[in-house]
Amino acid sequence: MENKKRILTGDRTTGRLHLGHYVGSLQNRVKLQNDYETFILLADIQALTTHFKNPSMLKDSIYQVAIDNLSVGLDPNKVTFVQQSQIAAIAELTVFYSMFVPVNVLRHNPTVKAEAAQYGYDDLTYGFLGYPVSQAADITFCHADLVPVGEDQLPHMELTRKIVRRFNDLYGHGESILREPDALLSETPRFIGLDGGSKMGKSLGNAIYLSDSQEVIKQKINGAVTDPNRIRITDLGNPDICSVSQYHKAFNPGEYNNICDMCRSGKIGCVACKKQLGKALNDILEPVQTKRAYYEEHLDEVKEIVQTGSDKANQIGNETVRQIKEAMNIHL
Amino acid sequence: MENKKRILTGDRTTGRLHLGHYVGSLQNRVKLQNDYETFILLADIQALTTHFKNPSMLKDSIYQVAIDNLSVGLDPNKVTFVQQSQIAAIAELTVFYSMFVPVNVLRHNPTVKAEAAQYGYDDLTYGFLGYPVSQAADITFCHADLVPVGEDQLPHMELTRKIVRRFNDLYGHGESILREPDALLSETPRFIGLDGGSKMGKSLGNAIYLSDSQEVIKQKINGAVTDPNRIRITDLGNPDICSVSQYHKAFNPGEYNNICDMCRSGKIGCVACKKQLGKALNDILEPVQTKRAYYEEHLDEVKEIVQTGSDKANQIGNETVRQIKEAMNIHL
Ligand code: SF4
Ligand code: SF4
Repeated sequence: MENKKRILTGDRTTGRLHLGHYVGSLQNRVKLQNDYETFILLADIQALTTHFKNPSMLKDSIYQVAIDNLSVGLDPNKVTFVQQSQIAAIAELTVFYSMFVPVNVLRHNPTVKAEAAQYGYDDLTYGFLGYPVSQAADITFCHADLVPVGEDQLPHMELTRKIVRRFNDLYGHGESILREPDALLSETPRFIGLDGGSKMGKSLGNAIYLSDSQEVIKQKINGAVTDPNRIRITDLGNPDICSVSQYHKAFNPGEYNNICDMCRSGKIGCVACKKQLGKALNDILEPVQTKRAYYEEHLDEVKEIVQTGSDKANQIGNETVRQIKEAMNIHL
Repeated sequence: MENKKRILTGDRTTGRLHLGHYVGSLQNRVKLQNDYETFILLADIQALTTHFKNPSMLKDSIYQVAIDNLSVGLDPNKVTFVQQSQIAAIAELTVFYSMFVPVNVLRHNPTVKAEAAQYGYDDLTYGFLGYPVSQAADITFCHADLVPVGEDQLPHMELTRKIVRRFNDLYGHGESILREPDALLSETPRFIGLDGGSKMGKSLGNAIYLSDSQEVIKQKINGAVTDPNRIRITDLGNPDICSVSQYHKAFNPGEYNNICDMCRSGKIGCVACKKQLGKALNDILEPVQTKRAYYEEHLDEVKEIVQTGSDKANQIGNETVRQIKEAMNIHL
């Protein structure tokens, strides 16, 4: 039997994944897949909180996000892919937890506040407000031990831990019915977009997607914002305010210091610098693109992978719900 | 096949049912069971909104409420008993609907406001706030046509109808995926408690339960508050301010006018008046008590009835969820 600790991670299925995801989480997942039992949630229900008006795009995203994960090297024989909307237990746990989470705690959750501001909701929906509650359900349906998160997700994790403790206090009779998960804080630095923005988000529109062709990637790099004060090659550059240098740092780390020096001393031009980046990215993305091409041509296999994983997750989730009802003594 | 319209009704499983329920809804259910396909929801999840700290009492209530319904004459071969917590589809629909119901609509719902005030919550829980959303899920999981409600429940019904319309607008592509239910407004008057309070609620503690023995009922009637100005039998009484007369109106209607006249003219004493009420109640409750005694001794049969009904409801609910996912195009 499995003695490995269990990881719950995943992605909202609101579009394809990009290099920000690669650096921020996918790379890490690949590293962790051997030592942990990993569940990757294709979070289509969570995607509905912002995309309920256009859910049909979610279906394509479910496949694309699964393929993004597979193509960077996650092994379907090691990790479990789970389509969130297939797991009724997640909805059931959300409803249970909602009984003892005060509205005010959700309202004051910094991430809910920030996200509500970002998406410009004057009028929060009930589902959006409850996003941390459903996230607690995502994490606990499979008794996950660890959740890889960025720093901005820590308040959610803390709420999940609180919900678990509260549940165990209320219904555990001294036992831990639910497992209190730990955050696995990733050390990933903030990653700037090609427009020099603060974080490469899907919404910036200028990100490099894992599914972009070599040609498209080249064009995007060529259009990247560099040090605006550097007009001629002989102008001394400042890599700290240049998005290209950040890409070197992330994807060409061996050359990063050297490139910064050359930029500062005017020994490398931006065109050559971008060319080097293109080559480095290409080395990384070529195997990814090869894998992607395979899965794009074998969508049935992707479907099978997600279905098999979701079936396994449903068994686990239904058992968790059974345990919870027994603890609460509401089973017949 | 069934061509009857479908009714969804039910009770929170927060305690045994009393005469207020009998007059307010049970009597009506018995009348309707032949002409409609009736689903009776044993609402244990909804009960959790107020009783999450003590769910173990809910289990006993689930059985007791089922028996209350059976003993007043609801026929398990005609109606379908459904344990709410067994129907994952209700939780799933709650999560779907929560995506497009604004928090402010829930906050301003008069019933949520009133109930929050009644239970003295400074700090609403997320689940309590969402009670109208989960009620919409209760009603729509089985595509109910009609919901018998009191006037105070009309705002909830209106919200359910709005949610259904919104859902059909968003995802129906011109078709009605969900059925818009109609309220079946009951004409039941407000029923005063034996202490002369405004409504016989479970929380008043002085209600006459369907499960009370004849002896207990007698005691409760003897302790009932009558016209406080009537000290001697010769004092002229005012039945309008006497709880006993209200019971005559509800349970001894043929004698009601006569009793009021005699009370007003000092021709009947309170002791005799209460005795008459006791007899009238006894005539009604004797067959109820006989049926109850049977089911109390056959709890396995009650369990079987609830389980069979819940299984049937799960089939219907799962099919509804399937239809909804297809309409939203989030199935694989
Ligand atoms: S040389 Fe490279 S790091 Fe320096 S400004 Fe140009 S693109 Fe940026
Ligand atoms: S006679 Fe009957 S109706 Fe009149 S005050 Fe007494 S109990 Fe009430």
